[in-house]
Amino acid sequence: MAEVVRGNAVVGQSGGPTAVINQSLVGVIEEAAKHEAVETLLGARNGVRGIIGDEFVPLKGLDAGLLDRLAVTPGSALGSTRDKPDEEYCRKILDVFARRNVRYFFYIGGNDSADTARIVRDLARASDYDLRVIHIPKTIDNDLRVTDHCPGYGSAARFVVSAILGDDRDNASLPGVKIDVIMGRHAGWLTASSLLARHDAGDGPHLIYVPERRVSTDQFVDDVAEVYGHLGRCLIAVSEGIEDVDGKPWGEKLATAVERDSHGNVQLSGSGALGDSLAELVKTKVSAKLGGKTLRVRADTFGYLQRSFAGFASPVDAKEARRAGQMAVRYAMRGARDCSVAFRRRSGDKYGITCFRAKLTDVARETKPLSAEYIRERGNDIHDSFRAYAAPLVGALPIVGRLP
Amino acid sequence: MAEVVRGNAVVGQSGGPTAVINQSLVGVIEEAAKHEAVETLLGARNGVRGIIGDEFVPLKGLDAGLLDRLAVTPGSALGSTRDKPDEEYCRKILDVFARRNVRYFFYIGGNDSADTARIVRDLARASDYDLRVIHIPKTIDNDLRVTDHCPGYGSAARFVVSAILGDDRDNASLPGVKIDVIMGRHAGWLTASSLLARHDAGDGPHLIYVPERRVSTDQFVDDVAEVYGHLGRCLIAVSEGIEDVDGKPWGEKLATAVERDSHGNVQLSGSGALGDSLAELVKTKVSAKLGGKTLRVRADTFGYLQRSFAGFASPVDAKEARRAGQMAVRYAMRGARDCSVAFRRRSGDKYGITCFRAKLTDVARETKPLSAEYIRERGNDIHDSFRAYAAPLVGALPIVGRLP
Repeated sequence: MAEVVRGNAVVGQSGGPTAVINQSLVGVIEEAAKHEAVETLLGARNGVRGIIGDEFVPLKGLDAGLLDRLAVTPGSALGSTRDKPDEEYCRKILDVFARRNVRYFFYIGGNDSADTARIVRDLARASDYDLRVIHIPKTIDNDLRVTDHCPGYGSAARFVVSAILGDDRDNASLPGVKIDVIMGRHAGWLTASSLLARHDAGDGPHLIYVPERRVSTDQFVDDVAEVYGHLGRCLIAVSEGIEDVDGKPWGEKLATAVERDSHGNVQLSGSGALGDSLAELVKTKVSAKLGGKTLRVRADTFGYLQRSFAGFASPVDAKEARRAGQMAVRYAMRGARDCSVAFRRRSGDKYGITCFRAKLTDVARETKPLSAEYIRERGNDIHDSFRAYAAPLVGALPIVGRLP
Repeated sequence: MAEVVRGNAVVGQSGGPTAVINQSLVGVIEEAAKHEAVETLLGARNGVRGIIGDEFVPLKGLDAGLLDRLAVTPGSALGSTRDKPDEEYCRKILDVFARRNVRYFFYIGGNDSADTARIVRDLARASDYDLRVIHIPKTIDNDLRVTDHCPGYGSAARFVVSAILGDDRDNASLPGVKIDVIMGRHAGWLTASSLLARHDAGDGPHLIYVPERRVSTDQFVDDVAEVYGHLGRCLIAVSEGIEDVDGKPWGEKLATAVERDSHGNVQLSGSGALGDSLAELVKTKVSAKLGGKTLRVRADTFGYLQRSFAGFASPVDAKEARRAGQMAVRYAMRGARDCSVAFRRRSGDKYGITCFRAKLTDVARETKPLSAEYIRERGNDIHDSFRAYAAPLVGALPIVGRLP
């Protein structure tokens, strides 16, 4: 362990917000206040963008009541950014840090943010500037490597499970085919969590599709027809990023007009296109397979509510997100030069985690797909073994009652 | 008051479910168990459809634990129906009632269900069959006449407020134009509740559109451009049934392909079409008004989650829904021949209701639009006076924190 240096600290938030990203921020603020080595804690407005623009909010001495309210507020309280800095951008970051005597950089985000942290660290090292860089994980996609799971995931999953649980009862009341599109361009962790809504035989979701397993839309039609033929209804949970066997996303394949975001990616969230296309497919092809039966078909795209719904965070997720922020500061105070805060699940029956330091290079860039062991052979469902993984992160949910 | 007759009772659920419709069912079950006059309580499967099909579930003697679970379960536990019975249909209902010695009919639903209750009552009266018919109000649209508000509304509004509250923080993190489409074909009560998410200056929703006030899509474009010009972002809450000045729904006007439901109505829910069309409008016309600025535009359609989300019901709504079910049985036991259970708000600072009996004919068929006094002059916002009406129904919500 290296010695602790005195200086200023910067904390920033990046990428898509979560329901608990401010818990991590408050964790950093609270813990930093305990250490004299941190002379001033500055919040960067809109992540790296605020750093190079020299836009900071002083975060020491904030009222405890405000911190409590902040912690339960969805969204990134400091503002966020989609910028993915290259070396030149990071050089500007380092210039600002040097000018302001910033010796600690806490960056809350996903794998891109870990990569930004890595570049900044490499540049600091190359120029012999003493800077401690700690990445704090955050993503509803749950796709960061090394860590058992990511802050933000449990709350998003809790929203999904509760939505599917209720929607399944709604669909049982007025039977039909219901398609629920869930966030996850490349990672199916969130969509897989919908499994937790299934308690008894006949409960939905009856079909679950994730981006890690390619499935043809023809199989989708067969699957829906088979479930409907059996049960007289069908509830489907599908990842927005689901791909056909040729690797082309269903959304792109079925959509008439395709939207692209600022990175040139097809826009999946904030649009009902995939759900509506699948509903159309069911109305025509599934109906035909069932002898021309008129089907009640509806589609909902859960959209931004999954990551921002207020007042419904998973208690475990909230606590762990706070702890990730606290641990980031502690690691730095114990002399760590760089790392990403990671969780290890304790062995034994009772759920618990210990924190440890992951290497930035192991977390940056690459992502962790949903493990193949959880995906059923046919690619249209999730194995029950996934419950043990996800249930503690989601927390207790209402127990549904049914008439005999 | 007429004398109490001994006989069997039937309870049914109709129309779109809510998060608390089973509270009313459990209220009927619990209260009926206390009265010897009710020999057997039968649950009609899928509303009137189960009556004419003679499909009933015995509901006396159910385990108390099951009733507790049932009460917090969204969806209609007995199943629902979209059937709107005419006189001939109702004659079949009466035939089944006579054959099974049914003397009490409790029907949980909206204005169509009140109308069904009215027809059945008239037929019974005409044939001198002693039948007590009590309608129990239910609708997330909150559009029943006479009553101060409807069971189901508070919980749906709670979902909407929490969603908008979080979404506004999300939109503040990554600024852009966000369109949230809220249920309500003709009634704006639910969309108006989004106002409760607004606490401080600059908070969303910045624009609120309801079906009771016609607004041109040109004005919509102007409104969004103005808000965006001021704030650099804009969060919009819009009812799915919003109409242009010529009375044509925006959804129909903007959509390329239009879906119709089994009643021939344009399908509004379970489709992202309106949101996607409005997003397109913003990307082209609002962007042009702002000098060709590229805007981050997203749309979410809250869909079925508004009425079915599990574990997030408004406590007041849940309690009142249960009470409506109990009161229905009590009114019948006190000798009422027919009525719809209604709520009157007590005067004074502390919120509370008293129940009273509304005439079926006053509740059937016609609906109650959002009062004009709540809608702002320009038709793009709701007056603050609406808070006093809606806040007690929604219940306490997380208090959002912001950095200085």
